Amino acid sequence: MWLSTRCVLAFDILAPTPFVLMLRARSGAQQWIASETYMLTPSVPVFEFTDGYGNLCQRLTAPPGDFEVITTAEVMTADQVDRGRGAPFVEIQDLPDATLGYLLPSRYCESDRFHEMASAITAGQRLGYDQVLAITDWLRNSVNFQPGSSDAPVSAAEVNSRRFGVCRDLAHLGIALCRSLSIPARMVVGYLHQLEPMDMHAWFEAYLGGRWYTFDATQVELHGGYVSVGYGRDAADVAVYSQFGPPVYPKVQTVEVKRIQR
Amino acid sequence: MWLSTRCVLAFDILAPTPFVLMLRARSGAQQWIASETYMLTPSVPVFEFTDGYGNLCQRLTAPPGDFEVITTAEVMTADQVDRGRGAPFVEIQDLPDATLGYLLPSRYCESDRFHEMASAITAGQRLGYDQVLAITDWLRNSVNFQPGSSDAPVSAAEVNSRRFGVCRDLAHLGIALCRSLSIPARMVVGYLHQLEPMDMHAWFEAYLGGRWYTFDATQVELHGGYVSVGYGRDAADVAVYSQFGPPVYPKVQTVEVKRIQR
Amino acid sequence: MWLSTRCVLAFDILAPTPFVLMLRARSGAQQWIASETYMLTPSVPVFEFTDGYGNLCQRLTAPPGDFEVITTAEVMTADQVDRGRGAPFVEIQDLPDATLGYLLPSRYCESDRFHEMASAITAGQRLGYDQVLAITDWLRNSVNFQPGSSDAPVSAAEVNSRRFGVCRDLAHLGIALCRSLSIPARMVVGYLHQLEPMDMHAWFEAYLGGRWYTFDATQVELHGGYVSVGYGRDAADVAVYSQFGPPVYPKVQTVEVKRIQR
Amino acid sequence: MWLSTRCVLAFDILAPTPFVLMLRARSGAQQWIASETYMLTPSVPVFEFTDGYGNLCQRLTAPPGDFEVITTAEVMTADQVDRGRGAPFVEIQDLPDATLGYLLPSRYCESDRFHEMASAITAGQRLGYDQVLAITDWLRNSVNFQPGSSDAPVSAAEVNSRRFGVCRDLAHLGIALCRSLSIPARMVVGYLHQLEPMDMHAWFEAYLGGRWYTFDATQVELHGGYVSVGYGRDAADVAVYSQFGPPVYPKVQTVEVKRIQR
Repeated sequence: MWLSTRCVLAFDILAPTPFVLMLRARSGAQQWIASETYMLTPSVPVFEFTDGYGNLCQRLTAPPGDFEVITTAEVMTADQVDRGRGAPFVEIQDLPDATLGYLLPSRYCESDRFHEMASAITAGQRLGYDQVLAITDWLRNSVNFQPGSSDAPVSAAEVNSRRFGVCRDLAHLGIALCRSLSIPARMVVGYLHQLEPMDMHAWFEAYLGGRWYTFDATQVELHGGYVSVGYGRDAADVAVYSQFGPPVYPKVQTVEVKRIQR
Repeated sequence: MWLSTRCVLAFDILAPTPFVLMLRARSGAQQWIASETYMLTPSVPVFEFTDGYGNLCQRLTAPPGDFEVITTAEVMTADQVDRGRGAPFVEIQDLPDATLGYLLPSRYCESDRFHEMASAITAGQRLGYDQVLAITDWLRNSVNFQPGSSDAPVSAAEVNSRRFGVCRDLAHLGIALCRSLSIPARMVVGYLHQLEPMDMHAWFEAYLGGRWYTFDATQVELHGGYVSVGYGRDAADVAVYSQFGPPVYPKVQTVEVKRIQR
Repeated sequence: MWLSTRCVLAFDILAPTPFVLMLRARSGAQQWIASETYMLTPSVPVFEFTDGYGNLCQRLTAPPGDFEVITTAEVMTADQVDRGRGAPFVEIQDLPDATLGYLLPSRYCESDRFHEMASAITAGQRLGYDQVLAITDWLRNSVNFQPGSSDAPVSAAEVNSRRFGVCRDLAHLGIALCRSLSIPARMVVGYLHQLEPMDMHAWFEAYLGGRWYTFDATQVELHGGYVSVGYGRDAADVAVYSQFGPPVYPKVQTVEVKRIQR
Repeated sequence: MWLSTRCVLAFDILAPTPFVLMLRARSGAQQWIASETYMLTPSVPVFEFTDGYGNLCQRLTAPPGDFEVITTAEVMTADQVDRGRGAPFVEIQDLPDATLGYLLPSRYCESDRFHEMASAITAGQRLGYDQVLAITDWLRNSVNFQPGSSDAPVSAAEVNSRRFGVCRDLAHLGIALCRSLSIPARMVVGYLHQLEPMDMHAWFEAYLGGRWYTFDATQVELHGGYVSVGYGRDAADVAVYSQFGPPVYPKVQTVEVKRIQR
């Protein structure tokens, strides 16, 4: 399906503030960016670089006053997410080098602490896809998805103890559980068509049977319409904006995802 | 200045043909891509990757029949090219690791054969910027810039013996001369505002005084309006399209670069 | 000075166990590896790769039974660590792209929680080197260095609350404090001449005035004799060995560092 | 088999001369470096970096006078080279991104000029391994392997017209022929046990059926005992030493490869 995405961020800047933005989606195996726009008001010099995960990042210093970022894209994405049912667990020694980093614990995914719990959740499942499905089902049933319930990211251990959270929180716990079973898992941020309420979204991918598959415990059923913007170990790597100096919060953050004909 | 660029390529494909395209400009220190579009007709699956030089490349297989690629961009680029007058030669031991590859000879730049000639052309010049300026001036005076005079790339040695060529040819000879003096030099393809006749353009950059500077022997004087699309050692690395199997030539290749207000 | 290093790890393996080892030091700006050996008993197939931080990693599957890894090296390293006194804070917008990842919180360095504390510790200091020196002095005075006091890594927040730890723990807290002040900081594991008691060691580096400088709160005074083996965000990235499946602990882990003449 | 390798290079340096050396073998899928030494006399500061092909390179400035480089290694390598008989041609659209660069023409491999010739040599062969075998057989029969017959690298086109050459020359022509058939091919330099006369050696690899396979037209039959030191597009990328400024030739270049017991 063809989607049009639009994200507006507006800040009230007090002092010149360095930003790193991650708001430019890239074409990849699962999506094709047919057009995009990236507007900064006021216009300031921007330097773009590719981070260690392959994400395009934009560096700039926002001047005092109103500062607005608007990005849009027209994206061809899959009608159905490839579910990968039956994709097997990949033995450690057969994992590609580049996936090994996604087995390690990270800031918000203390996978070193979840082995016992993950084993219990996936008891009796075939190794691989069925394990991750069991983890996602467990998350859906056990952790209350409450959009807007947290501002700052909290870690998988905290999510597990309080049992509610935003999309990012469910993804963190899912990732930690997968990694604790030696299944590489990574965070994705981006857009999802028909997300309720609409906002930037976060989900996770697990590496099974030789490729990455999408999992999302916030949705009753996986449907198409995902647009990836950034990949990383967890939310620390894929902040849509990182800002340095005194904290600055967006006074406006609006996201639109519409189906379009092309 | 703000520029709008547009490139149309149309092919008449006989059998399914794998392509690698390099037609997506990236934001960088010298330019900011505020919007872009990339249309393929008919629509086919595309996989995008970043090559070893940081260029975004698009892989696809064109189906038999008419196949059209249209890319557009709106780009903020410098009004004036930074000339770097006086930028010094960087001693080999002080060059960043990543520039060393641009000292080596490459397919179309046999820099291992030009040391004597380059020394003669730059005799009496201060090391660094003045050498590259002397090389560019020599190219402008000695190699006849004849747009449309060649299809397939020829190498610097051949350009030197026939003394005429397209923009790519002048760049190849310039690069070979620079490298023979231990000045890192690389090829750039992209767009140039007010190029006559309008087409994709090629020029080169030399690494001096700690950064890359633009040189272009096809222009009487360096003015602003350059939009970079790809970087590499020479034309072998930065083909706007590489096609595999029986040769296929575009039946249409049109380029537009216009100044716009934003 | 010339140092000879030797590390012996011996395991009692119950079932075939995949390992990733990080035990091959690399030559770099601060050290030159003149010779090295890497012995596995029994001999098994090993695949070496470079991780995202540039570390050489060795992948293998240990067979059941005794499994021994012995690595040695002869290394030229600095007599004195370059202290960098006076090296200034680098403004965010001037940091190299590759250092930005070292500003982010990571598994064991929750830098997002230390800004207030770091500001207090460094109050009145000039931005840059003096801040990191104040942090290191504070660590030395406030966190009890107790070799052998912990097995599994604990995070900076936990170190801060219990106020004792192994070298790794002090480094984690130092890194978290630096990052909370927007100073890039990274973990280093390796060897230190005359470390008491001798073992693998961990310390940290901070990016100041355009380069990385060494800091080590476990030593009363910085002296020469550091040999780096791995770099990363924190201990999660630079485990000397990572093992998958049921936990396996070395029954022998001995380290020797001797001064030699060459 | 276990091999011990040793390479001695000695230069008579007139003025301080920057060098880039590529003399440190790395462990990989086909070989394991169990020990190595790297001696420079006189001792000078060295900076090691990884080039764009993954090779470890050593940068240094040789002082005037005698300058000697001695490297040794003990290497486990395959008893038999994996021949890959029957490995199929990989369709362009299925090639890994990282192999695409090895389809492009390069300084000494003008693959853009060999399609007709390669088609003739491989006429009637099944696509893939059999094609490369036919190319290697043709090289063996048609290009006279004459060790010592050239100093400076010459290109595939020149080798094809003169029909004799050193190992590097045969490899260049083999690579150019493979690439002209859309088979990725790359240069390897290193050691070969029982090479006659003993020296550094060069051969090539072709990407077939999902991996790289070794080919060597200088040997009547492929046998084990290869030790890779560097990979690249052609000799321009894998010079054992690159030196800048007035040319300097080694007054001594000796290589030993011995079978050892371990």
